[in-house]
Amino acid sequence: MDDPTLRQLLDDVASGVRSPDDAVARLRRLPFADLGFARVDHHRMLRQRMGEAVYAPGKSPEQCAQIVAELVAEPAGGPVLLTRAAPPQVEAALAGTPDGTVTETGALATVAWRGAPTRPGRVLVVTAGTADLPVAHECVATLDAHGLRPTLLADCGVAGVHRLLASVDELADADAVVVVAGMEGALASLVAGITPAPVVAVPVSSGYGAALEGVTALLAMHASCAAGLTVVGIDNGFGAACAVVRLLP
Amino acid sequence: MDDPTLRQLLDDVASGVRSPDDAVARLRRLPFADLGFARVDHHRMLRQRMGEAVYAPGKSPEQCAQIVAELVAEPAGGPVLLTRAAPPQVEAALAGTPDGTVTETGALATVAWRGAPTRPGRVLVVTAGTADLPVAHECVATLDAHGLRPTLLADCGVAGVHRLLASVDELADADAVVVVAGMEGALASLVAGITPAPVVAVPVSSGYGAALEGVTALLAMHASCAAGLTVVGIDNGFGAACAVVRLLP
Amino acid sequence: MDDPTLRQLLDDVASGVRSPDDAVARLRRLPFADLGFARVDHHRMLRQRMGEAVYAPGKSPEQCAQIVAELVAEPAGGPVLLTRAAPPQVEAALAGTPDGTVTETGALATVAWRGAPTRPGRVLVVTAGTADLPVAHECVATLDAHGLRPTLLADCGVAGVHRLLASVDELADADAVVVVAGMEGALASLVAGITPAPVVAVPVSSGYGAALEGVTALLAMHASCAAGLTVVGIDNGFGAACAVVRLLP
Amino acid sequence: MDDPTLRQLLDDVASGVRSPDDAVARLRRLPFADLGFARVDHHRMLRQRMGEAVYAPGKSPEQCAQIVAELVAEPAGGPVLLTRAAPPQVEAALAGTPDGTVTETGALATVAWRGAPTRPGRVLVVTAGTADLPVAHECVATLDAHGLRPTLLADCGVAGVHRLLASVDELADADAVVVVAGMEGALASLVAGITPAPVVAVPVSSGYGAALEGVTALLAMHASCAAGLTVVGIDNGFGAACAVVRLLP
Amino acid sequence: MDDPTLRQLLDDVASGVRSPDDAVARLRRLPFADLGFARVDHHRMLRQRMGEAVYAPGKSPEQCAQIVAELVAEPAGGPVLLTRAAPPQVEAALAGTPDGTVTETGALATVAWRGAPTRPGRVLVVTAGTADLPVAHECVATLDAHGLRPTLLADCGVAGVHRLLASVDELADADAVVVVAGMEGALASLVAGITPAPVVAVPVSSGYGAALEGVTALLAMHASCAAGLTVVGIDNGFGAACAVVRLLP
Amino acid sequence: MDDPTLRQLLDDVASGVRSPDDAVARLRRLPFADLGFARVDHHRMLRQRMGEAVYAPGKSPEQCAQIVAELVAEPAGGPVLLTRAAPPQVEAALAGTPDGTVTETGALATVAWRGAPTRPGRVLVVTAGTADLPVAHECVATLDAHGLRPTLLADCGVAGVHRLLASVDELADADAVVVVAGMEGALASLVAGITPAPVVAVPVSSGYGAALEGVTALLAMHASCAAGLTVVGIDNGFGAACAVVRLLP
Amino acid sequence: MDDPTLRQLLDDVASGVRSPDDAVARLRRLPFADLGFARVDHHRMLRQRMGEAVYAPGKSPEQCAQIVAELVAEPAGGPVLLTRAAPPQVEAALAGTPDGTVTETGALATVAWRGAPTRPGRVLVVTAGTADLPVAHECVATLDAHGLRPTLLADCGVAGVHRLLASVDELADADAVVVVAGMEGALASLVAGITPAPVVAVPVSSGYGAALEGVTALLAMHASCAAGLTVVGIDNGFGAACAVVRLLP
Amino acid sequence: MDDPTLRQLLDDVASGVRSPDDAVARLRRLPFADLGFARVDHHRMLRQRMGEAVYAPGKSPEQCAQIVAELVAEPAGGPVLLTRAAPPQVEAALAGTPDGTVTETGALATVAWRGAPTRPGRVLVVTAGTADLPVAHECVATLDAHGLRPTLLADCGVAGVHRLLASVDELADADAVVVVAGMEGALASLVAGITPAPVVAVPVSSGYGAALEGVTALLAMHASCAAGLTVVGIDNGFGAACAVVRLLP
Repeated sequence: MDDPTLRQLLDDVASGVRSPDDAVARLRRLPFADLGFARVDHHRMLRQRMGEAVYAPGKSPEQCAQIVAELVAEPAGGPVLLTRAAPPQVEAALAGTPDGTVTETGALATVAWRGAPTRPGRVLVVTAGTADLPVAHECVATLDAHGLRPTLLADCGVAGVHRLLASVDELADADAVVVVAGMEGALASLVAGITPAPVVAVPVSSGYGAALEGVTALLAMHASCAAGLTVVGIDNGFGAACAVVRLLP
Repeated sequence: MDDPTLRQLLDDVASGVRSPDDAVARLRRLPFADLGFARVDHHRMLRQRMGEAVYAPGKSPEQCAQIVAELVAEPAGGPVLLTRAAPPQVEAALAGTPDGTVTETGALATVAWRGAPTRPGRVLVVTAGTADLPVAHECVATLDAHGLRPTLLADCGVAGVHRLLASVDELADADAVVVVAGMEGALASLVAGITPAPVVAVPVSSGYGAALEGVTALLAMHASCAAGLTVVGIDNGFGAACAVVRLLP
Repeated sequence: MDDPTLRQLLDDVASGVRSPDDAVARLRRLPFADLGFARVDHHRMLRQRMGEAVYAPGKSPEQCAQIVAELVAEPAGGPVLLTRAAPPQVEAALAGTPDGTVTETGALATVAWRGAPTRPGRVLVVTAGTADLPVAHECVATLDAHGLRPTLLADCGVAGVHRLLASVDELADADAVVVVAGMEGALASLVAGITPAPVVAVPVSSGYGAALEGVTALLAMHASCAAGLTVVGIDNGFGAACAVVRLLP
Repeated sequence: MDDPTLRQLLDDVASGVRSPDDAVARLRRLPFADLGFARVDHHRMLRQRMGEAVYAPGKSPEQCAQIVAELVAEPAGGPVLLTRAAPPQVEAALAGTPDGTVTETGALATVAWRGAPTRPGRVLVVTAGTADLPVAHECVATLDAHGLRPTLLADCGVAGVHRLLASVDELADADAVVVVAGMEGALASLVAGITPAPVVAVPVSSGYGAALEGVTALLAMHASCAAGLTVVGIDNGFGAACAVVRLLP
Repeated sequence: MDDPTLRQLLDDVASGVRSPDDAVARLRRLPFADLGFARVDHHRMLRQRMGEAVYAPGKSPEQCAQIVAELVAEPAGGPVLLTRAAPPQVEAALAGTPDGTVTETGALATVAWRGAPTRPGRVLVVTAGTADLPVAHECVATLDAHGLRPTLLADCGVAGVHRLLASVDELADADAVVVVAGMEGALASLVAGITPAPVVAVPVSSGYGAALEGVTALLAMHASCAAGLTVVGIDNGFGAACAVVRLLP
Repeated sequence: MDDPTLRQLLDDVASGVRSPDDAVARLRRLPFADLGFARVDHHRMLRQRMGEAVYAPGKSPEQCAQIVAELVAEPAGGPVLLTRAAPPQVEAALAGTPDGTVTETGALATVAWRGAPTRPGRVLVVTAGTADLPVAHECVATLDAHGLRPTLLADCGVAGVHRLLASVDELADADAVVVVAGMEGALASLVAGITPAPVVAVPVSSGYGAALEGVTALLAMHASCAAGLTVVGIDNGFGAACAVVRLLP
Repeated sequence: MDDPTLRQLLDDVASGVRSPDDAVARLRRLPFADLGFARVDHHRMLRQRMGEAVYAPGKSPEQCAQIVAELVAEPAGGPVLLTRAAPPQVEAALAGTPDGTVTETGALATVAWRGAPTRPGRVLVVTAGTADLPVAHECVATLDAHGLRPTLLADCGVAGVHRLLASVDELADADAVVVVAGMEGALASLVAGITPAPVVAVPVSSGYGAALEGVTALLAMHASCAAGLTVVGIDNGFGAACAVVRLLP
Repeated sequence: MDDPTLRQLLDDVASGVRSPDDAVARLRRLPFADLGFARVDHHRMLRQRMGEAVYAPGKSPEQCAQIVAELVAEPAGGPVLLTRAAPPQVEAALAGTPDGTVTETGALATVAWRGAPTRPGRVLVVTAGTADLPVAHECVATLDAHGLRPTLLADCGVAGVHRLLASVDELADADAVVVVAGMEGALASLVAGITPAPVVAVPVSSGYGAALEGVTALLAMHASCAAGLTVVGIDNGFGAACAVVRLLP
């Protein structure tokens, strides 16, 4: 509830258009729908310029379907995403709300409904290796649902640095870069040293040796010597996309 | 070395203006100055739109002074910062290169030379508690050197959430928000749930109980349920400022 | 064995009613039943005002059934709970001791026999997200078995803080609040800043990014800036309920 | 701002007693005092039944003095505490606001102003060893400021369990027990197995061998086999006292 | 090769009974059998007074069978144990070397061949809970194979300390005590405070809350306030038994 | 692109043999093949004297087959390895590119194509126990593909140090030694104390007690008191082999 | 209070020698002296065959002096030790209770009063390096106070394994061996593979590389492949000595 | 004692030149000097081709001086190094054994006596930043003492990758490269991707953000995607140099 609305509400009380009781009720009514097991947030698009995402793990197929349907039914809402959904969850959600776009992210999938209109912004999603692709695909699908059309540069790891340098112009001209990297995560430092654009790094739980399921990459990205690099959680391609949505005009 | 320069170089060789030997030498000459103990990067302003920062810990006062002088001497350079400098380092650097602006960050200081012209952008730096102020001051000083004029909101921790809600309009209207928080770092999630702006979180090493010198806040910020929150390293107010410099137009 | 009993025992020896040998034996006889693989504690209800709970993991269905039967057979005992039981364990226990109340907690279940009479106390169980529900259900079932009738508020995570604020009056009036939250666990700090009631936080192993299977939430809750917040172990909905049973009159 | 106040505010607008503009301003005015470096929370006593505490580390003596003075100046406030204060901080605060009660907690101190009237409640603070005393003293001083008169049982560690058993009746009759223990923290499990009262455990950073500065005790207390034990952060005697204040009637 | 043997060897060379070449070869021949994938140690019984144990995980059933057969074939050897063997490994080993004694340790088993003659020594194996039994059974089986006849006291956890105190005389009179405990491992401290006997603690990977798969118990046992407690690795019932075999006369 | 090539390129431009546009294109063309999901590095053999290896986990059988085929098709390339491949990946790769040599490494396999000619160098691969063999086999297969013919010494763990001492001459004469050890990793220190050769240690994720899936061995090898010992990542038999390939002439 | 005493007590009640009230009082009177800040355990010698030790850190010199005096004043007590005492603590204790034997353990000291008569038992204390000596000296002083006369073998680290093998006969003939080792702790495995005696390992916080202040050695000793090795806490030379006192006849 | 010596010894016994008793004594005499607090290893040069190094921390100046003197007195020995020595240790050692070469490594120093003759081998020591110089200097001093003349390339961190690429030819032609890097350690991966030479990485404890005193760099280097990279312990410039000494011919 923003300031003009609050002002209008009180004006209405002052002018007798609205009773005090009604105003109290209105002030207490918050823009979510209570499904019992979930309080669906119909306010997020206004508050955060982002759609609502349903994180599938731990929810039953029926719960996924019900929350997605509730969100898509709200006419003023933005994009609706179902993330990290297993096949039965995807099926149930699509049965209840058809016309979703499915993107495979490894064994799971991201489904998007009511994508936003295309908006400008040169976004690069760069991965260090093939094993980082599922996370990159989640990121690309989320950006796509918000109207951005990112370019994916796969397999640019630092062990063969010329593979990255081949794309140095695209990096220098980007409006935002997402770096998706497991192992030691060094690609993020390197990219942030090349481009003036905002760089969001996603540590990935792939890798071996001492990768510790992504913790090593997360720590390494935070200890990076490249100034102004920011980091999201392990495997959080969705979060990196949201960060890009926030920062592009 | 960008594409047009490379093209010109080869045209010069083709037209006989430049000999092949000279071109090889030119291609190998990279824009840094080698001081023996440091390779000073004169290219960063062009490559990254950011000034160069000298991280003082581990350097002698003389080394600090010498690197700062070398950087400020480069006419095409941008802002020059000396960060986390102890008093003798500050003194030596200012003796060699006067007119720096000193900002105290706890027992240490940030010194800035040749600040950039003021540029637009509503930036908020929000802290959870008084103990987070030294990190916030480093962030503010860095933003300031790059021409931004951030507003500092101190002591908005979630234990008295109304202190934050009092600033809800400023949060909603910001172009970028930096959240500086130790302890459990919950303020970052809360802020990112309120504003549509990009939010950069800085975990702080203050706090007790199980704060683990900032590791708890760092992990908590990465496990945040707020979409699109990004994080920099522990106590890295400088890095958060650089991230904001990257993402503002 | 409390003081009056001990006094009576010695009086009986002094008066010749009981022989010294018999008194030694009596002093050594402790109120448990030895099943060979378990020493069943018949004394807990008196000593701790709580019923006995059988933690199912690692026990065979037969062992579960046998311990439950032994406990329910004790006439002076209180509620008997079987927690985190897999379907074969539930079946075996109910076959041996019918009339248990089954509550599903994700893929497992809590079974309760001989619930305590209803007792007063406004208890809220608040969860941050849908994935926290199995732990919340274990908590609710345990409270229920001890005669409390808690209210469950689901999906109040801080990313949409208005969902929590909608329940601010219930929080302010509660006698005890249990906060069940994975991810970064920030909800606990927020709730403890709103209510004067005792707040018991349960970190949950759900979440991703850097949730580290609940360790991040546990640490964050302990580093909380909210005074007087207490914490139980990861996913320990049962323990949180017992803490509430202890603290209500 | 509670419901009746809100209702009154709107009634005033409806009856013309208050203009809408004034009401908007009133709704936005929150009960804290902004000192620039701190937002002093004058609302906590009403909201949480607890006084406000100033955590001294990281604050200058002047800041400590200023915040304490602001808090004590609020007539409707409750107890005011300055915790973990070094001698110069204690001196500055007492110079500005005399008549504080000083309790030494190792090399630091807790200072309390305007203690609450004595209230009933049998509270035990039990320590495992002499090294746990500074944390226990912080706990006792905080309880005392809130009107409780706890009994301190020092040096009851499990290596000589008869020392604890000597106090078994006091444990059984307590209304609340705080267990302060470093090393392996086993005392908390033992106490919680003896008493039906709520037990709040404080892990202490003392100890050696593999005590890991309190982390081992914290983890062990959370893995405890004693049902309903709750835990606060490492060395957080203040927090344990607040938890007791919350749970006693 | 001990001193008298070496002396004899050199005497034989001096007296011409043995050639220098033969002595060199003899000195280089070490008492193991090389099976290609394993160097079977026939010397351990002499060197360490313990039998040889084959750790089954990671070995094929055939490899288990072959190593066991080689060890049992050595006439001067002591007990032979196959530990943590899955059913196919047990079957293969018993097919090749019949007459082994099988002890179930949860889903796995310990198999023993050629047990040592019974030897004196009152050994107690005490467990905190039912979930610790598989580890305790491995310990008991290993002690048994070496001729000791331990007494198993199950389910003596500190949450009901009277269950342990019932056995206080047996503890006081024991020659050695093994404490097997998961969760917070507090039982080890308690037992070591009661008995003058050597106490070997085995942390167990059971438990929840913050048990961290046994790491919490291991750390807690090392931070114990009970003097002279020693610890073996997580779930290492075999190792605890070997420690007892070493220390009994 | 090395210096002579660059010189030739510029000479060609100077002499008019090559147009500047063509030279720019050539300078930008880097020696990899872009398969969309992978940038195959055809340059590694020249740049690093090692063949290219395809790490199978996370790749589909078809992707494995396609990358292997692309690599083997490059005539100037060196050995091609597919590592940690599951049976379907092995089958697909061999179907597309026959004549690979398969080495089993536990449940997975290493496949090698186009092995290098035999080269001199006495390399020992020493393992502590049978459970270390899969990692040792990966190491041996990789060495073999590069033309080295290592000797495998299995089961030389320090618990029976004479088993290692039996091979002391081979250790002293080796050109390089790889030590593959889980558990506490002590074998690496011991070997490095015996031989003057370079010693590369591979911590293995086998073991129990407190082996922490290889982290304990990794840390122990780095804390080793043996000077000049170097370490690769956990279970990284491939990496150890590559290190040996780098260091032998 | 042991069985015969209890029997006697009850007989006395039965025969009228003692009143029931007196018996209750007697049963409740436990053998410790309450100094307010410490409950001094006068029972430990009987219960554990060990003297009482006062751990100095965190105690004031006066507290050290007072506890030592109380313990030495008890005529039936055994050895009294003050461990890890700083010079002012040593001085205060010796001023109050002269004739203590001081052993330096690095910058701190162990002081012993009323040493036990010499008892048999060949005990070896073996250290890996010179930096382990302070811990070894604490161990030796504690053994000495209990009447044992250990032999110290310094600087036997595995990097030069022949230094250890020189003492192989002493190891084989020992009744108990304490291994004191920092760095990677490999010496403990090696010694336990050589001797049949009980081996108690003490991880030491010395070392660098990845020694993590003794945690690496502690973990490595627990992951040891040597059967029957037991471990005490980091730097706990006192605890290792107590373990030896417990296990020798 | 090598094979020919052993053969000669036995021949001497066979021929009567040496008595069996004398041979036994000889076989037991090992090549070290026992100073009581240290067993000085006179055999290392023969066994490992490296000199002996004395690690100064934890040793008194006198002990440092005595061990250095003993080592330099051995005529057949190689280089003698005193590492990480504080000023008083340096002074004492030089007073007892003059003519040592002192290299400052931050606040400490490395001192070398009796350097080996110059030997061939192009060794590069590359650092990421100025803060890594003390570790690099320890490495250079150690290489120098063994006759190698390394080239130091300072401040080549990946944030400005062109600073490294400027030295690409030296990297490609090196015989061995040591990479000294704190922060995220990415430089090691990058260098190993450029050069075919053996690369030894040294993680450094400098850095901030989430550098965790070098642990992040250590883990990152082990998770590196560059094949054949090896790693030594944190800050272990000495160890890296020894690794290079082992691997050069």
